[in-house]
Amino acid sequence: MKSLPDSVLAAMRKTNELFDSELVKHQNFAALDRVYTSDASILPPGAPMIEGRDQIKAFWKQAIASMGVTSAKLATVSAEAAGDGILEIGKADLTVGDGQTVTVKYVVYWKQENGTWKWHVDIWNTN
Amino acid sequence: MKSLPDSVLAAMRKTNELFDSELVKHQNFAALDRVYTSDASILPPGAPMIEGRDQIKAFWKQAIASMGVTSAKLATVSAEAAGDGILEIGKADLTVGDGQTVTVKYVVYWKQENGTWKWHVDIWNTN
Repeated sequence: MKSLPDSVLAAMRKTNELFDSELVKHQNFAALDRVYTSDASILPPGAPMIEGRDQIKAFWKQAIASMGVTSAKLATVSAEAAGDGILEIGKADLTVGDGQTVTVKYVVYWKQENGTWKWHVDIWNTN
Repeated sequence: MKSLPDSVLAAMRKTNELFDSELVKHQNFAALDRVYTSDASILPPGAPMIEGRDQIKAFWKQAIASMGVTSAKLATVSAEAAGDGILEIGKADLTVGDGQTVTVKYVVYWKQENGTWKWHVDIWNTN
């Protein structure tokens, strides 16, 4: 386990917070440009792998609307330097349409793109 | 994307095949010593994260029995060097009790332990 500088952890927190502040709260899906690398992959439960940021935007637009997500709080459980990237294990508490909380756990492999830390591989499931 | 030497890909294939040949076919859960690092974590759908190889053995013993898995064919979709480790995206075709095939996709972060490539972080979900 190689620990990460505070500045990197802060940058990760900033990216993670965009998901709630921009996507969920303001349906600003263009903000995913700051969250995912252009050639990122996501592996959502109940669907095949999706490759590329444009396809990922379309997925989240549909998924956030259909689940009625009103809040998404992401928290890093562990983060480890892995070559040019970072391996993060995290959890997300989602508030959905009926006010219920859904807890999701995830693994994200991060890469830097134009100096910004972004999600490059993103897979999750529910508890 | 840093490509991996054929010898590493072959070692990964060998580890991946143990899952079917030892666990599923022979209920030899001790073989997980050769599959997971001693401090590995798994993030199974429908359950919280499980840490440590002993706990992981208990999980698979119960899960393989309860799902009635009779075959598990793992295939690497992509594998990339990431520091001391490897980030693998893969898919698994499981044959379960009633003869149906369940397709699972996964992300595994590999590490070497005593010279053997093993799964260190393992998360999956269904399509």
